[in-house]
Amino acid sequence: MPTSSDLTFANRLADAAGDAIRPLFRGNWEQEKKSDSSFVTEADRAAEAAMRALIEAEYPDDGIVGEEYGTRNEGAGRQWVLDPIDGTTSFIAGRPIFGTLIALLQDGFPVLGIIDQPIGRERWAGFSGKETTFNGKPVRSAPCRSLSDAVLATTTPHQFSDQEADHFMGLAKAVAERKIIYGGDCYNYGLVASGHVDIVCEAGLKLHDFAALAPVVEGAGGLMCDWSGGPLHSASDGNVLAIGDAARLEDVLEAMDLAL
Amino acid sequence: MPTSSDLTFANRLADAAGDAIRPLFRGNWEQEKKSDSSFVTEADRAAEAAMRALIEAEYPDDGIVGEEYGTRNEGAGRQWVLDPIDGTTSFIAGRPIFGTLIALLQDGFPVLGIIDQPIGRERWAGFSGKETTFNGKPVRSAPCRSLSDAVLATTTPHQFSDQEADHFMGLAKAVAERKIIYGGDCYNYGLVASGHVDIVCEAGLKLHDFAALAPVVEGAGGLMCDWSGGPLHSASDGNVLAIGDAARLEDVLEAMDLAL
Repeated sequence: MPTSSDLTFANRLADAAGDAIRPLFRGNWEQEKKSDSSFVTEADRAAEAAMRALIEAEYPDDGIVGEEYGTRNEGAGRQWVLDPIDGTTSFIAGRPIFGTLIALLQDGFPVLGIIDQPIGRERWAGFSGKETTFNGKPVRSAPCRSLSDAVLATTTPHQFSDQEADHFMGLAKAVAERKIIYGGDCYNYGLVASGHVDIVCEAGLKLHDFAALAPVVEGAGGLMCDWSGGPLHSASDGNVLAIGDAARLEDVLEAMDLAL
Repeated sequence: MPTSSDLTFANRLADAAGDAIRPLFRGNWEQEKKSDSSFVTEADRAAEAAMRALIEAEYPDDGIVGEEYGTRNEGAGRQWVLDPIDGTTSFIAGRPIFGTLIALLQDGFPVLGIIDQPIGRERWAGFSGKETTFNGKPVRSAPCRSLSDAVLATTTPHQFSDQEADHFMGLAKAVAERKIIYGGDCYNYGLVASGHVDIVCEAGLKLHDFAALAPVVEGAGGLMCDWSGGPLHSASDGNVLAIGDAARLEDVLEAMDLAL
């Protein structure tokens, strides 16, 4: 299990990433294309490099899985999973709703997670068995009596295959159309923890996209799972649900025409 | 034509709206349903009431068109068009990318516009014949050599009819998929003025949604028009385009299969 010094250390990682990112927000930077045609920015690389240097210095035996610089100590029981800028397009577009994601996995299961928004200086931190905090203060996800009351968030309709889109649209139809928000990436999961968003539904996330989210949402009283209701771990397929009121899981899966 | 005292006054309106909105962001408020099933918040009403009181006191002969409290002095040549919270769903969900919109129309054409984000304290102000400012400093929209380089924004796919969605998808296909951002409402248009977003494409906007946007985008060197390339005025149909590099208008209309 993680210790409170792991949490202190994770906060230092987020501070270092934020220091690297802030000067480059809305600035001029060189854009490059990676082979998977996603956009890498100088900020992405600088933030991950700063975090890796700290981990390698303080916890040289821990593993690292980074979006930009790959894997280190692959077989280690403790693995730091880093996404320096989740929501690169929001970053490029100048919207302060991207985030730095930091997770600690123990034997493949996320036990500590941080979602940090360095421009607005907003930080959610979740930690196995403890209450999730927002800027240091405990937060709780919100009760939600019915899907028709829910605020539903998802980043982009383009993330879904045709079949996945059918499942998502089932959920969208059960929610009031005016209460569906698009865009937001990891930031939406922080808002579930704080009780402002009720459900996030996404598909095709990578480990570095979702590992930090589960401890944040669950430590606030919410539920994070895959599209069959199962827990998230390093081999999950990346189709995820965050549900602020765990009592709505069955309703969500039913609206999506998925079996529990 | 508007005077610099009109701009000073519009800034006072935005200050008053922000003072009404900030205490209620992420707070507990009573949600009500309007007949059109959109969500009204206490913040919406308080902000519009504060702005109307100032206009009625200082410019009693001017017209007012407000989202919440309707129309006053309908026949006046000068009309203040107010949307206290554009992006109500973002506000409800706790995302700081909604905005207060204030426009001054002269004989039906917007000549002054403000987009104010009261949480991040970000304000774009546009004024016929002057440079648009962001927090008081002049900004310029960005050059864009080709649609394949463009960042494209739109608030939600649900705003489009089937036919409108076909036009939008033509544009989306001409842009790199990873550079399409969803969500954001009026905030996206400010980002066009600041050169971070290249194109915004939306349908079915109301006068109070779009009137303030044109002076902001155009005073930064960009173009705002309807889906046939024509200027926006009080009788426009609400299908709008904002294009940071006006030289791309023809490419945009061609990609959307619309005639200039």
